[in-house]
Amino acid sequence: MSQARNPAVSETGDPLLLTPGPLTTSKAVKQAMVHDWGSRDATFIAINRAVMEELPKIIHGEADFVTVPMQGSGTFAVEAMLTTFVPRGSKILVLINGAYGQRAKRILEIAGREPVIHETAEDTPPDLTEVEKLLVADPAIGHVFAVHCETTSGIRNPIEAIAGLVKRHGRRLLIDSMSAFGALPLDSRETYFDAVAASSNKCIQGVPGLGFVIARKSALAETKGNATTLVLDLHDQHAVFERTGQYRFTPPIHVIVAFHQALQEFWAEGGVSGRGERYSDNARILIEGMEELGFRTLLPAARQAPIIITFHMPQDKNFVFQRFYDALKDSGYVIYPGKLTVADSFRIGCIGALDAQNMRSFVATVSDVLAQMGVGLKSAA
Amino acid sequence: MSQARNPAVSETGDPLLLTPGPLTTSKAVKQAMVHDWGSRDATFIAINRAVMEELPKIIHGEADFVTVPMQGSGTFAVEAMLTTFVPRGSKILVLINGAYGQRAKRILEIAGREPVIHETAEDTPPDLTEVEKLLVADPAIGHVFAVHCETTSGIRNPIEAIAGLVKRHGRRLLIDSMSAFGALPLDSRETYFDAVAASSNKCIQGVPGLGFVIARKSALAETKGNATTLVLDLHDQHAVFERTGQYRFTPPIHVIVAFHQALQEFWAEGGVSGRGERYSDNARILIEGMEELGFRTLLPAARQAPIIITFHMPQDKNFVFQRFYDALKDSGYVIYPGKLTVADSFRIGCIGALDAQNMRSFVATVSDVLAQMGVGLKSAA
Repeated sequence: MSQARNPAVSETGDPLLLTPGPLTTSKAVKQAMVHDWGSRDATFIAINRAVMEELPKIIHGEADFVTVPMQGSGTFAVEAMLTTFVPRGSKILVLINGAYGQRAKRILEIAGREPVIHETAEDTPPDLTEVEKLLVADPAIGHVFAVHCETTSGIRNPIEAIAGLVKRHGRRLLIDSMSAFGALPLDSRETYFDAVAASSNKCIQGVPGLGFVIARKSALAETKGNATTLVLDLHDQHAVFERTGQYRFTPPIHVIVAFHQALQEFWAEGGVSGRGERYSDNARILIEGMEELGFRTLLPAARQAPIIITFHMPQDKNFVFQRFYDALKDSGYVIYPGKLTVADSFRIGCIGALDAQNMRSFVATVSDVLAQMGVGLKSAA
Repeated sequence: MSQARNPAVSETGDPLLLTPGPLTTSKAVKQAMVHDWGSRDATFIAINRAVMEELPKIIHGEADFVTVPMQGSGTFAVEAMLTTFVPRGSKILVLINGAYGQRAKRILEIAGREPVIHETAEDTPPDLTEVEKLLVADPAIGHVFAVHCETTSGIRNPIEAIAGLVKRHGRRLLIDSMSAFGALPLDSRETYFDAVAASSNKCIQGVPGLGFVIARKSALAETKGNATTLVLDLHDQHAVFERTGQYRFTPPIHVIVAFHQALQEFWAEGGVSGRGERYSDNARILIEGMEELGFRTLLPAARQAPIIITFHMPQDKNFVFQRFYDALKDSGYVIYPGKLTVADSFRIGCIGALDAQNMRSFVATVSDVLAQMGVGLKSAA
């Protein structure tokens, strides 16, 4: 298929990742990895300490919270959070409206905890009246788990309202803020929770390989002996940091050094407000442009987080998703398949080292690709 | 402290890491990370598949074995191996002569498996007569766990003899070959085992962030439902690869791409024999040079693996380890503290992108540092 435009490329000559992360990172973030460090040497230990001290500032929690990093990925951090904070055999209410809520349920079942489920459709936030009924009906439920932005659909769950409800009923809240952390506000002075999990390769714009949990110190202190694995025990991981400043097990040094650089760039952009604003602009340009071409979003604007946008698959018989994907990749844009059960769909991310001009060029390229495929959505829509 | 020599530096201007890994890697390995990839895009998936297909060749196991990668670190892979292959409540004989054997015992206890222990001193291999007695005495022991090279001391355990004994008694062997894999031969055609765990940042000379288990396909097939975590379940990890070619959870993409480059360099050096030979040369130069200066190794030559060498701490009152460490670091060499319980010691690694000239220069620098500290070991020894 011939391309009228030159393919889009990042600073390092790569396709732009319009995905929910791993995402396009700055060249400086990746260049930071072109060195060797000893894992027990002072140079690396100082870089790691700076990362751990900066993360709680993002939730205005530097007084009451501590960072516990977890090698692996975001899901490793979520499993570590769930199995460290929830004792074996204890009940936790899991709010599900997508794959990441389902994953938490599965983690809890395998690990011998007792999930109680409140599930809504993938385009629908939890029903807080129902949640309240469940908490009142079962005093054995000690914790509640919620996903901040469900990457399955891109929905923004009402985390502040959930937190208020959980606190009023004297339960503990654990948050998966994987795809939202650093872009959607989460202020621990106003929103009460015990722990929030996220990772290096989302809105802070580092490379993948490190998860982390920002935990309320007083709550973490109560978790000794809860964990049912060695490597995922956040209490033990934290205790060893307190004693030695070092990881218990080899850390992903290069990933952490890149994350340190990414955090400097995050603050330079104005932290959550600056980054959230750029992502909101990216999302607005994308949605307006795609709607102009005849695509329809799954979510109404009020429920849409500016992280990843789910579009309905067009009905036009000339629209073949794999051809669409491949043509966009040939043009320098990697998009993301759908994960919905409620509708046939695909997704486009707005996060990473992408700006308004990238999003406008992307929409123009989609227009070209549709023309080449002989798809006329505008008239069909 | 003035230095007569210019500090040693790697290709990327970093101190040389004379540690058991993370270690000094080639510039090309690190430069491979200066790109972005989508985790579900074909480009990365092909790189990852190549890595997974090449690893079993190192043990001549491409017909019967499969690679199951595990995000995190080597210990994540060991915990995944133990808790996937050993069902809950089952007995496993753990051969301990250092910290990594102890760690396996702790993993098993926390995860509700039943370790039976055979422990020898850190400078002493397992007593195979005793091991045999234990296997005969307790038919409920289904598995045996052994460490190939114990990084605690640098001892080379007799893995071939252990494997023969375990097979004769109809039990299953699980090997932690973390610090030996790729440098000490392990031929699955002659040495029978169910699984071996290692990591990206040891003798293959990649960067840290990925563990892996090379598992006998027939044995892995029997492990469904054994795991007591989601993220560390090797059976599930493998099943999803078989179905989709993709990771269940975000992989450390950059670490894997660097590991792919490291594997190319490993084969170019002649695989296990070429790399093992260079490390043996490094170890010989180091030991001869240090003995010439008056240092003494913990282990006799017959038990010493050419991976990491433990030296007794000198008794000279002018020898202060932290000053020795700092002066060597100022000169461009990062060494490693001791971990022994049996003797006061320190360790020096022979692995990574280091050659004979590096080792000779290191020994000369040690000589300079001793002179500056006013330590005269040669006469004292």
